Amino acid sequence: MSRTVAVFSKHSTSLLNKLRELLPSLVFVEVLPSDLSPLKEAEIIVGDYNLIAPHLYQLPKLKWVQGTWAGLDSLWPHIDRQAPPKFPITRTSGENFGTLMREYVIANMVFWERNYFKAIENQKAKLYDRDVSPNDYRSIADLKVAILGVGSIGSIIGRSLKGLGATVYGMGRRATIPLEAPENAYLEKYYTKTGLGHLLSSVDYIVNVLPKTPETTNILGNGMLKHCKNKNVVFINIGRGNVLTELELVQALNEKWISGAILDVFEKEPLPQESQLWTLPNIFITPHISGNSRAQDIAEKFRINLARFEKNEPLVNQVDFDKGY
Amino acid sequence: MSRTVAVFSKHSTSLLNKLRELLPSLVFVEVLPSDLSPLKEAEIIVGDYNLIAPHLYQLPKLKWVQGTWAGLDSLWPHIDRQAPPKFPITRTSGENFGTLMREYVIANMVFWERNYFKAIENQKAKLYDRDVSPNDYRSIADLKVAILGVGSIGSIIGRSLKGLGATVYGMGRRATIPLEAPENAYLEKYYTKTGLGHLLSSVDYIVNVLPKTPETTNILGNGMLKHCKNKNVVFINIGRGNVLTELELVQALNEKWISGAILDVFEKEPLPQESQLWTLPNIFITPHISGNSRAQDIAEKFRINLARFEKNEPLVNQVDFDKGY
Repeated sequence: MSRTVAVFSKHSTSLLNKLRELLPSLVFVEVLPSDLSPLKEAEIIVGDYNLIAPHLYQLPKLKWVQGTWAGLDSLWPHIDRQAPPKFPITRTSGENFGTLMREYVIANMVFWERNYFKAIENQKAKLYDRDVSPNDYRSIADLKVAILGVGSIGSIIGRSLKGLGATVYGMGRRATIPLEAPENAYLEKYYTKTGLGHLLSSVDYIVNVLPKTPETTNILGNGMLKHCKNKNVVFINIGRGNVLTELELVQALNEKWISGAILDVFEKEPLPQESQLWTLPNIFITPHISGNSRAQDIAEKFRINLARFEKNEPLVNQVDFDKGY
Repeated sequence: MSRTVAVFSKHSTSLLNKLRELLPSLVFVEVLPSDLSPLKEAEIIVGDYNLIAPHLYQLPKLKWVQGTWAGLDSLWPHIDRQAPPKFPITRTSGENFGTLMREYVIANMVFWERNYFKAIENQKAKLYDRDVSPNDYRSIADLKVAILGVGSIGSIIGRSLKGLGATVYGMGRRATIPLEAPENAYLEKYYTKTGLGHLLSSVDYIVNVLPKTPETTNILGNGMLKHCKNKNVVFINIGRGNVLTELELVQALNEKWISGAILDVFEKEPLPQESQLWTLPNIFITPHISGNSRAQDIAEKFRINLARFEKNEPLVNQVDFDKGY
C-alpha cells in the first residue's frame, strides 16, 4: 500500500527529488500556492511552517506534519495554545549543523587569510598575479582559535580545526570541563565568561557559536574586543547577532580592535539595506546560511519519523505545544 | 658574535620580519636591486634564485646561499656545470605544501558547492539572498573524491578530506598499496592508471596532485573525462597542467563531461591573456598558489640549516650540481 504525502515548500523541487530518491514506494504530491487542494486530502505533510501554519486547523484528515526546519517563529502565531493541533508537528533539527558550520569556518578562514576574494576579482580582469596572497599568510595550522560556545556544534568545529593543526581554545557556560576527557581533547584550554578578555587577547580568530540568551547578549560588547587590538584578529560570527551591537562591531573594525569580520548572523536580520556593514572593507557577509536544513537532511529526518509513524511509535523532534518549543 | 646575513628577495619585507623574529641575534641586511653592495660582503645570503644567480661567481666571500623556493629553473642558466660554485646552495623545499594544499582543496570545495562566489557578488549588491546556495548542496561529508597522486602531498589532502567525512579514492604509480596499513587508512580504494576510467565514473570530485612526467602527460586527455559525464563532477587541478590540453579541458566543460573546474595550474603558465579559460562559466582560476614557500617557511628552513652550518654539518636540501636538482 503506497502512502500519499503532500509536500509544500519553497524548495519543493529539490525536496521532492530527495524524498522520492529515499522513499521510492511513497507517492509525493507537490502543493502549489495556486492549488492547495492536495492539502485537504493529506494525512501527512512535509512542509515549511510559514506555508502550512495558516491551514493547520482546516485539515481534518491530517495526522502528522514534518516541518522543514528547526525555528518555530512562523508557526506559533497560528497555534491556539488552548486548543493545540491533535496531530504531531515534528521539526527538522540541526544534527547536521556542526558538519555544515565547520566547513563554513574552515573555508572562510582559508579564503580570508590567502586573499582568494581578490583572486576572484583578478580572474575577472584576466590578471595572473601570483602575489595575490600575502607572502606570509597564515595557514589554519598556524592559527590560535577561540570558540565561543563549545556545545554540540562548537565542539565539532573545534575538532576539525584541531585536526587541521590549529590551536583551539573554548569558552562555555559550564564552570569547568575535564580537558583530559577524550571528547575535549581538541581543547588547549577552557574558559568561562570571566576569562573572556584574557582569551581574546591570546588568539588569532574568534568563532562565535553562542545561542541567543540573556547571558550572551552583548557579551562581546562594551569594548570587550579591545582585547584583540592590533593583533590581526578575525571575528567569525555564526552564532547569533546579539553578542554585540552592530554599532560597536563597526567601531571595532574602524578602530582596528579586530582586523576583519566574517558574518553570517546580524543584530537585525535580514541585514537592512542601510547597514554600514555591507560596504565596510575587511568584511564578508553571508545571509545566515552557515548551517541549514538541506533537502537531503529533511528527507532523511522524514524517513526516520515515517518508520516510527508506521509503527505508532513516538516521533522524534516533536514540537511541544505546552512548553512552546 | 653576531653574523651578518644578506637578504635579497622580492618579498624582503615579510622575509626580514620572519627572520628577525626567529633569529634575533643575527643581523639581516636587505639587498635592494639599486644597491648590491651588501652582496659583496656577504658570507651568507638568503634570496630568490633569479635575483642572486647572475652574481654567484662574483662573490668571493660567499659561503652559503639559502634559496627561497624549490624550483631551480632560474638558477641553472647561471651555473657553469664544469666549474660549479664551491659553496652550497640550499632550497626551501615543500614540506608544508601538503598542509597548504589541503586547505586550498577544502576551502574551494565548500565555496564551490555552496556558491559562495555568488554570495560575494550579492554582498556588493547589498542583496541578502538566503537562497544563494542550492537547497540540496553537497557537504564535504557527502563527497566521493578521487585523488590522483597519493604521495606525500596527496595523502595529506586525502586524510584531511576523510577527516571531514568524505569518501576518498586514490590513484598512484605503485601497482598496489596495503590499504590495511595505518598510513593508508584514509583510502577507500586504490587504483592504478589502468583503473582510471572506472575511478572517474565513481566520484564527485577529481583532485589532481600528479607531478609532470611523461607518464602523467595527457593522462586525463583523449576523452578520459567522458567517464564523468553528466554527474556533476568538479575537477581540481593543483598538480601540473600537463594532464590534459587546455583545448580538451575547455571541451570537457562545454560538453558537461565535468560540471566545473578549480584550476591552480595550466598547460601554459602564466595563463595567457587569450586563454578561453579566463571567461568560461563554472571555473575558478588561481595563479599557481595552492602551495608555496611562505616567508615563515623560508625562515624556518634557514634556521635549521644555520644550526648545521655553524657546526659544519651537511646542510639539508642542498642543490646537487652534478645531478641537476
